[in-house]
Amino acid sequence: MSQYERPNIKAMQGYTWGEQPDDDRTIKLNTNENPYPPSPQVTHALAQLDMARLRVYPQPTADPLRDVISNLHNLTRDQVIVTNGGDEGLRLALTTFVEPGAGFGMANPSYSLYSVLAQIQDANIVQVDIESDWSYPEDLAQQMNSQKVQLTCLVNPHAPSGTLHSLSQLSAIAAQLDGVLLIDEAYADFVEPTQNYDATQLLADHDNVLILRTFSKGYSLAGLRLGYLLGNTNLIDPLITKTRDSYNIDHISQALGVSALEDQAYAQDTWQRVREDRDMLAANLGQLGLHCPTSHTNFLLATVSEDAPLSAQQIYSQLKDVGVLIRYFDTPELNNKLRISIGTPEQNQILLARLSEFLNP
Amino acid sequence: MSQYERPNIKAMQGYTWGEQPDDDRTIKLNTNENPYPPSPQVTHALAQLDMARLRVYPQPTADPLRDVISNLHNLTRDQVIVTNGGDEGLRLALTTFVEPGAGFGMANPSYSLYSVLAQIQDANIVQVDIESDWSYPEDLAQQMNSQKVQLTCLVNPHAPSGTLHSLSQLSAIAAQLDGVLLIDEAYADFVEPTQNYDATQLLADHDNVLILRTFSKGYSLAGLRLGYLLGNTNLIDPLITKTRDSYNIDHISQALGVSALEDQAYAQDTWQRVREDRDMLAANLGQLGLHCPTSHTNFLLATVSEDAPLSAQQIYSQLKDVGVLIRYFDTPELNNKLRISIGTPEQNQILLARLSEFLNP
Repeated sequence: MSQYERPNIKAMQGYTWGEQPDDDRTIKLNTNENPYPPSPQVTHALAQLDMARLRVYPQPTADPLRDVISNLHNLTRDQVIVTNGGDEGLRLALTTFVEPGAGFGMANPSYSLYSVLAQIQDANIVQVDIESDWSYPEDLAQQMNSQKVQLTCLVNPHAPSGTLHSLSQLSAIAAQLDGVLLIDEAYADFVEPTQNYDATQLLADHDNVLILRTFSKGYSLAGLRLGYLLGNTNLIDPLITKTRDSYNIDHISQALGVSALEDQAYAQDTWQRVREDRDMLAANLGQLGLHCPTSHTNFLLATVSEDAPLSAQQIYSQLKDVGVLIRYFDTPELNNKLRISIGTPEQNQILLARLSEFLNP
Repeated sequence: MSQYERPNIKAMQGYTWGEQPDDDRTIKLNTNENPYPPSPQVTHALAQLDMARLRVYPQPTADPLRDVISNLHNLTRDQVIVTNGGDEGLRLALTTFVEPGAGFGMANPSYSLYSVLAQIQDANIVQVDIESDWSYPEDLAQQMNSQKVQLTCLVNPHAPSGTLHSLSQLSAIAAQLDGVLLIDEAYADFVEPTQNYDATQLLADHDNVLILRTFSKGYSLAGLRLGYLLGNTNLIDPLITKTRDSYNIDHISQALGVSALEDQAYAQDTWQRVREDRDMLAANLGQLGLHCPTSHTNFLLATVSEDAPLSAQQIYSQLKDVGVLIRYFDTPELNNKLRISIGTPEQNQILLARLSEFLNP
């Protein structure tokens, strides 16, 4: 350890990312990537790039991409900031709205990166336990306010359970919170369309709401690192003009991001395929005794019952041994569960066949 | 202004970036880009990309690129972190090594982004004035130590003067400083090779030195946002494992970065052309009464004498009116000077012709 590190940095652990094997044989159902490749329009946009343009700095605020995003959501350009993946959006919200020593709010369990970023900012992490049915306690906002929380991050649909919280509940929380509510919608593209879920409605009534989106899942571009935040200008303006790195989005990502968003038909087709395969996989897992709450994401959280022949950790390990990676979290709330990303139909079938061998030997 | 912004964010101004016109006609000598396009090997690498690979997350720590960088500098992989442009390297050093309220050191004048990033971190900015011959005062380190400076950023070759400080001087400063010394080598590729300048020598003797490099200038890739920090593992490890965004470098940038570094012959040819054109431009500017200190960068800082028919600001404006952009800084130290990036020989000739018209009407 270094004498030069700040005390909070020295004391903390970094984020543990999911395994990223470099081979093509592993069936990778551990980090919630889209099983289908990016749109052919993205390939086309890449081929059209003028490489000489890389010599000069990119458009500083990614305005052409902001315009496509704002059109997609019926907002204005100044309600959008483009970020290097969702990660940068989360970090910028902490940097801008959370004083060191003040409170940062999150639910437990949720995305483990939140607490890592809060530790970097030296914030006081306030975790509110989720109920056993994955709902938020009624007094969530009061708990946050009483501990001087300046930013609360809630992922919706929730990870790792996959469950969807209603807009009315989020609206009530936003109205009650003294600080900013960031709704992390990393998985929102996979919500059932019949839900008519559209959190941008909240922006009309709340000046303290940020909505985070990513290209990683819905647009099959995890490798590109592209996301965005939506919010009213009182929140977006300081991110754009002050706290983001100048030129934070490179020229290639700006161009490919535009092409990906413009091919909505392709993206929506992958979402629908994932939804259908998700529901089929959930039914099949249930038949194996691995029950999952209704998921509105591209993953399932399966509970391993106490009388199963193998523990969750053993199932994870045995699947890994046969080249199928899923996610196991070694925490008290999650150590009897497994998070499984939705793969292609072929990958899902292989997963089920392996699980059937292990659980019904 | 928002009630949700932290007080230091609310109080600060953001970074003012150089103008980035989108047309092809402007002669753009204002943001120190390389006048030559990236290596053909970069174009080749882009064409070879497997777009389906973008579906999954990139290699989390950009290890293949770190290996090429460490080989180039005769270091080891764990002495390298790849960053989104030099900006991210500067920000990460502040995040990791500077407590809010503690001191951040810089020279005045130097790169204006430093103080913006320090304000975001809520650091106490300690500026030490540079001597009139652009040298550092003997007691620079003592001044920093007496004000509890935890990180000092010095750009070498210096911007905006272009002058080169010696390794022995930097070594003495590093030895005296209580905190970390970050040497920002954004322009080091353009140093005269006869100087045998290689700051990585300092890493053998100092555990508090970070060296910042960028692909923006030397490799003609400002549009790609790629840079790196070199240092000993006590400084690099917390940046890699804790404070950078996980997956901070996208898959395409990793691949293109490798291809750019591997074509050293191409890059070095552009550096040599820039050096020759720089020295010729400096001589010609001197004949117009615009004298420049010896530059080891890809720009010149020209002083407009008091008896010139136009002020520096007037020259900047009139050049802009005829489609030639250079940089004018409206500060007490620099408001009689102009910073001019080295263009192609044709661009430099047009600049000189315009200046000659304005100054010898």
